Amino acid sequence: MRFVAYQDEDGAGAIGRLDGTRVHRLPGVDRIDRATRDLENTPAAETGVELDGLTLLPVVRPEKVFCVGLNYRAHVEETGRDLPDYPVLFPKFASSLIGHGAPITLPPESSQVDYEAELAVVIGKGGRRIPRDRAFEHVLGYTIANDVTMRDFQYKTHQWMQGKAWDASTPLGPVLVTADELDPGKLDISLRLNGREMQSSNTERLIFDVPRLVEVTSQFTRLEPGDVILTGTPGGVGYRRDPQVFLAGGDVVEVTIGGIGTLRNTVLAEA
Amino acid sequence: MRFVAYQDEDGAGAIGRLDGTRVHRLPGVDRIDRATRDLENTPAAETGVELDGLTLLPVVRPEKVFCVGLNYRAHVEETGRDLPDYPVLFPKFASSLIGHGAPITLPPESSQVDYEAELAVVIGKGGRRIPRDRAFEHVLGYTIANDVTMRDFQYKTHQWMQGKAWDASTPLGPVLVTADELDPGKLDISLRLNGREMQSSNTERLIFDVPRLVEVTSQFTRLEPGDVILTGTPGGVGYRRDPQVFLAGGDVVEVTIGGIGTLRNTVLAEA
Repeated sequence: MRFVAYQDEDGAGAIGRLDGTRVHRLPGVDRIDRATRDLENTPAAETGVELDGLTLLPVVRPEKVFCVGLNYRAHVEETGRDLPDYPVLFPKFASSLIGHGAPITLPPESSQVDYEAELAVVIGKGGRRIPRDRAFEHVLGYTIANDVTMRDFQYKTHQWMQGKAWDASTPLGPVLVTADELDPGKLDISLRLNGREMQSSNTERLIFDVPRLVEVTSQFTRLEPGDVILTGTPGGVGYRRDPQVFLAGGDVVEVTIGGIGTLRNTVLAEA
Repeated sequence: MRFVAYQDEDGAGAIGRLDGTRVHRLPGVDRIDRATRDLENTPAAETGVELDGLTLLPVVRPEKVFCVGLNYRAHVEETGRDLPDYPVLFPKFASSLIGHGAPITLPPESSQVDYEAELAVVIGKGGRRIPRDRAFEHVLGYTIANDVTMRDFQYKTHQWMQGKAWDASTPLGPVLVTADELDPGKLDISLRLNGREMQSSNTERLIFDVPRLVEVTSQFTRLEPGDVILTGTPGGVGYRRDPQVFLAGGDVVEVTIGGIGTLRNTVLAEA
């Protein structure tokens, strides 16, 4: 099944099941988060509305957002690092997230805003110390993220948070595809900037796969429904190109993952 | 004024104003967090209860917890690093926090659990891009934190999150002292382990002071009421001692900050 988060006619959050191009609202569910229970068995309204006219929101409102760095072989190679034996973990905040179609705001403080195509995992059932062979019992589904990064802030110190957690920076969507529909270890992932392909890989090249990431993060903190893990980006980011490429006002960034769809956002210079 | 968070007789969260040793409940306020409004003008119940009999909770339930690394001159010297020109920032989660008197749990996965005495800043009024000369308008008050750290996990990669964000690891309390009562730049801070002094400094030795930390963090994300900034720890942490010292079951850790009080917790090996 596919779900979207959107603004209803009163501007409030709503969740709908997507059937083709029609969105059927789940009455009483205003967002996918810690309070979410059994989304797939929640009855949807019979009458739907067209997806095209809706303002989409980030598909979940997580309590915790885990990001993984240097998790594709090609991306690790371009940064010149050795393959790690434990994933590189850093945070974003719920306030970092925006929906499909919303503008990626360029803050005036940064001149090095970069894109990162990523598969995002949405937790459905909470748990602590989840072994990798039971990880999929805790996964609600998958969506697409653009882990937008302010490189000049990321490298201000050896810790990355201030380059990763800018408000309203990180598109997440457009849809949540439930776990039964996808093998997250075999998905084509690519990113186009103004139509030009900048990243292209497959999630089979992940160094730490989805079950291992669930295992590692749940070792130190309980995963809650709605929590999100961004699984890292393949090679081809703007910062590592020669010459470097950074986002500018008016740019269009599209991240496509096979079986999920395309997350499309334009870039807007913040006033 | 002084406030505490505690469990009421039904096990629910409650906030009370502390007058001497008596706690006067604020009806309708169950925790200090994003929904908190004008705590200091909220009327308190006339009848109080004794502080001694209460189970205290972390004084706030933050949406965001910012931690600052390497922010005391002596601590930076013991790690052998240069003085930074931007603070080292990393996160904890709300689920990392415990109250005064609650056990610091030692997870079986870590054999290097360490203490860190810290002054904690609690945000009262939200804001984005707060200049340092207006920072105090956004501070509700101060409390004490023990930024307990699993060193073997902290250094698994170059990013520290997995060493810092363990569930139920980080004492915060015992009381919130409102900003009008303290100058956060002139507070003695010390830590005793089983009665032996391990850390002793004064917040005048902070490299990045409270106004600067509010300025820096609010540059990239909106601070919300209840958000917390842990301002970093002075020299003397167990990991940097020779021989190294780590927490063990039965240890008693006390962090004392002048004008606030003492945050006392025992250490319990997790089953």
